[in-house]
Amino acid sequence: MLDCIIVGSGPAGISAALTLRANGKSFRLFGSSGLSEKISKAELIRNYPGLSNVTGQAFCQALQTQLQASEIAITEEKVSGVYALKGKFSVLTNEGGAYESKTVILACGVENIRPIDGEERFFGRGVSYCATCDGMLYKNKTIAVFCTTKRLEHEIAYLADLAKHVYLIPMYKDLSIARDNITVIRKMPTKLEGGMRITGLRFATPPLDGGSELLDIDGMFMLRESVSPAVLTGGLQTENGHVVVDRLQRTNLPGCFAAGDCTGRPYQYAKAIGEGNVAAHAVSEYLSENQ
Amino acid sequence: MLDCIIVGSGPAGISAALTLRANGKSFRLFGSSGLSEKISKAELIRNYPGLSNVTGQAFCQALQTQLQASEIAITEEKVSGVYALKGKFSVLTNEGGAYESKTVILACGVENIRPIDGEERFFGRGVSYCATCDGMLYKNKTIAVFCTTKRLEHEIAYLADLAKHVYLIPMYKDLSIARDNITVIRKMPTKLEGGMRITGLRFATPPLDGGSELLDIDGMFMLRESVSPAVLTGGLQTENGHVVVDRLQRTNLPGCFAAGDCTGRPYQYAKAIGEGNVAAHAVSEYLSENQ
Repeated sequence: MLDCIIVGSGPAGISAALTLRANGKSFRLFGSSGLSEKISKAELIRNYPGLSNVTGQAFCQALQTQLQASEIAITEEKVSGVYALKGKFSVLTNEGGAYESKTVILACGVENIRPIDGEERFFGRGVSYCATCDGMLYKNKTIAVFCTTKRLEHEIAYLADLAKHVYLIPMYKDLSIARDNITVIRKMPTKLEGGMRITGLRFATPPLDGGSELLDIDGMFMLRESVSPAVLTGGLQTENGHVVVDRLQRTNLPGCFAAGDCTGRPYQYAKAIGEGNVAAHAVSEYLSENQ
Repeated sequence: MLDCIIVGSGPAGISAALTLRANGKSFRLFGSSGLSEKISKAELIRNYPGLSNVTGQAFCQALQTQLQASEIAITEEKVSGVYALKGKFSVLTNEGGAYESKTVILACGVENIRPIDGEERFFGRGVSYCATCDGMLYKNKTIAVFCTTKRLEHEIAYLADLAKHVYLIPMYKDLSIARDNITVIRKMPTKLEGGMRITGLRFATPPLDGGSELLDIDGMFMLRESVSPAVLTGGLQTENGHVVVDRLQRTNLPGCFAAGDCTGRPYQYAKAIGEGNVAAHAVSEYLSENQ
């Protein structure tokens, strides 16, 4: 079993990985080979000590070189759930991967888009984050699909092939998917409604001409670059969308740590790498105390 | 009045300075042009994100280049006291400088040498950290001088010129000062004793052949590279020698922040620069709230 699983390949995740490697711990780093879209698009970083006025591209390149030199590979799977079991963690991915570790470091960043009211409540009861995992459950049903990035359009296509009807709410401009059973809505929903399961999606004003403010749906897919840590990890304590951590980056779940933007402002590289480092040290301490 | 005074030019202080500069705040950075003796002596830094396997020397050089590019100068005076006044701070230096600011960031690192029992209690009542400031008070008196570095031997010489007798306790090997009125002691004292003022210095075993375990003294000078933050700043809350801070690097004194090794383990560059960054953001927030 691995000592640690790191979720996220931004500065916090990379900093944690470098320190775990220096400390001789076994781990797996989940993320993307591009490391972080946010960094690579940064025009100029003016206050990262050691690298004067570096571009986001150059910073990304420096980190990639360093990962290679330290023989740290990135597992390019999208983590769909982190489950705290007795004395260990089980981490599942959208690609069907299942991994076990003694500790977890959540370094999954923050989405600028806030969760929709009811999203956490209905997770697993109509709300899904993974088309390939749960699509089959909605064969010939009516679903809503909320999508923040063009990069996930293939998941929309997959869902449209299965569902009877899809209400698509894209959060980006250059939409390039069109099907007979897709209705595009350019309004932000306000709330998910239902009892034990989702039954409807509410808007402030009718989303379709002549329609009601409430769309009847059987399920809702949230296709986002990253999933909120609270949704990813059941029982995790959050506050205003941020993971609550102490000075050692410990969350309320023993063995589960968090670092970087997901723990709150300031959203800064220096802060993220500092927290990744502290989290890695806290993991080592936790491992030696719980042998 | 300055927005902020930063005490210490290690990674935490530099990170704070770079971020305050980026945020357009006025400040003064106290430290040494060599930045940090600890960094420059580091053989190889393996886990600082962005700089692969960098030597301490190269890291120092990169930071110095960056400070120059950002037009940040270092004030090479040794801070002897930080005083919280009404809505502002007064910072005094051994060189006689007096500066005022709205906030302070303590980034003064940690001394590996622990304070001597009674040191904080007798500070200002027999204990001094500055030969040039307080030497005259001990003219023709008997004093003990504790010194951690050869670089401060000129302060010992100054004190020996004034005092009747000096018990010198050097914490380094190549001692090059010798005077008729200096007795060198190669034992660590255990405790300072006295009532309202210091009267004696106690050892576990007699420090001088045939003598007692208690030396009668009128005063004690502690000559160290850095002074403990609790001694520097009256009323500052500390725990096990570390400044107590919250997640925003706030200390118990409003407007006073702390970052880097002085706030506790792990003593790591990444942690220090992360905390310096967060402290600088907290300063900006504090300034806008207390205009």
